[in-house]
Amino acid sequence: MIIDRSQIEQMDKRYRTTFINSLPGFKCLHMLGTISNEGITNIGLFNSVFHIGANPPLLGFVLRPDTPDHDTYDNILETGEYTFNNVIPEYYEQAHQTSASFPSGVSEFLPCGFTKFYINGFKPPFVNESTIKIGLEFKESVDININNTKIIIGEIVKIIIDERLIVSDGYVDHIKAKTITVAGLDSYFSANALGRLSYAKPGEQPLKLKVY
Amino acid sequence: MIIDRSQIEQMDKRYRTTFINSLPGFKCLHMLGTISNEGITNIGLFNSVFHIGANPPLLGFVLRPDTPDHDTYDNILETGEYTFNNVIPEYYEQAHQTSASFPSGVSEFLPCGFTKFYINGFKPPFVNESTIKIGLEFKESVDININNTKIIIGEIVKIIIDERLIVSDGYVDHIKAKTITVAGLDSYFSANALGRLSYAKPGEQPLKLKVY
Repeated sequence: MIIDRSQIEQMDKRYRTTFINSLPGFKCLHMLGTISNEGITNIGLFNSVFHIGANPPLLGFVLRPDTPDHDTYDNILETGEYTFNNVIPEYYEQAHQTSASFPSGVSEFLPCGFTKFYINGFKPPFVNESTIKIGLEFKESVDININNTKIIIGEIVKIIIDERLIVSDGYVDHIKAKTITVAGLDSYFSANALGRLSYAKPGEQPLKLKVY
Repeated sequence: MIIDRSQIEQMDKRYRTTFINSLPGFKCLHMLGTISNEGITNIGLFNSVFHIGANPPLLGFVLRPDTPDHDTYDNILETGEYTFNNVIPEYYEQAHQTSASFPSGVSEFLPCGFTKFYINGFKPPFVNESTIKIGLEFKESVDININNTKIIIGEIVKIIIDERLIVSDGYVDHIKAKTITVAGLDSYFSANALGRLSYAKPGEQPLKLKVY
């Protein structure tokens, strides 16, 4: 069937939120760790992380400052630093729980069963239970005026990872890392490798498969 | 191990591209369909699609105008419309092939083995082989000056989908749709459901699982 703009507009608000959030498919899921200048830590669950560039290494994500995201936003502006931490199957229910509206000033670490992991020279905590931990330096906040959101852009400056998860050409093996993905706001998935393909060139089919 | 900024900077360029692209995990994968005013169609493969909001329904993606992405960009500006089309396992090698640098003016549809699908009142083609087809109206182009990229924001105005893929609360079932995901630039994955969880509330653990 074809659904058009007027039908989308007429959808019940909750139905539309679920529908539009799940429509584009699997998304990049991270627990975002921050700390305030007063030392109160925070975890937020974000499914809008996206690659902006490799040189310099930049990631973006979408934030709604008029929602519980404001703790995350305030902390990022205060310290200039934040962490992305992947989610693995053993902890996906706890990770989901970090999306609950805890009162401002209450850290999600303890009630959600996660452990803080700090490194020298970097303020915010990583999530110890994550197999891939990324530390970012805040670079830019872009206002999206259409719906009052912001895109936060940061540079990757720290990576905590078992070196056995990185293969010889730099590729990170997320099957070994047990990274999971999300559709919509609440449905979690592990991944099965279909294949890794060689660099695509016009007129050169079929493509050579590498095994990972 | 801990990898810091200076080590990232010292990485070989190709290694760093592979490493940084694969580091954040599974990404939202779409074939992006456009048409020029002269009627030349184009498919680009994008793995940076992200949710911006449900009301209005907005999706963003990252584009590099100084690369082969410029056909996509020019066409979006010309017609104001574009399509996102999911990738399914049967077609993932062909979808990868759309990322090859075909000469400007050559449509990827025929050489990559995809079929155009048009609907009334919407200019660009959808990919007939996709189980979820999304038509977007261009809204905003945001310059990311740090690395000369652009974030393109569009509003969802058409959705072509089998109604059996949408469950009663609006959730789209990507296991039934056979949607796949990608890590890095070249590694493709199908998904296995872990569970869909109820809305998270502080102090209410364990969470109730719904089955999908």
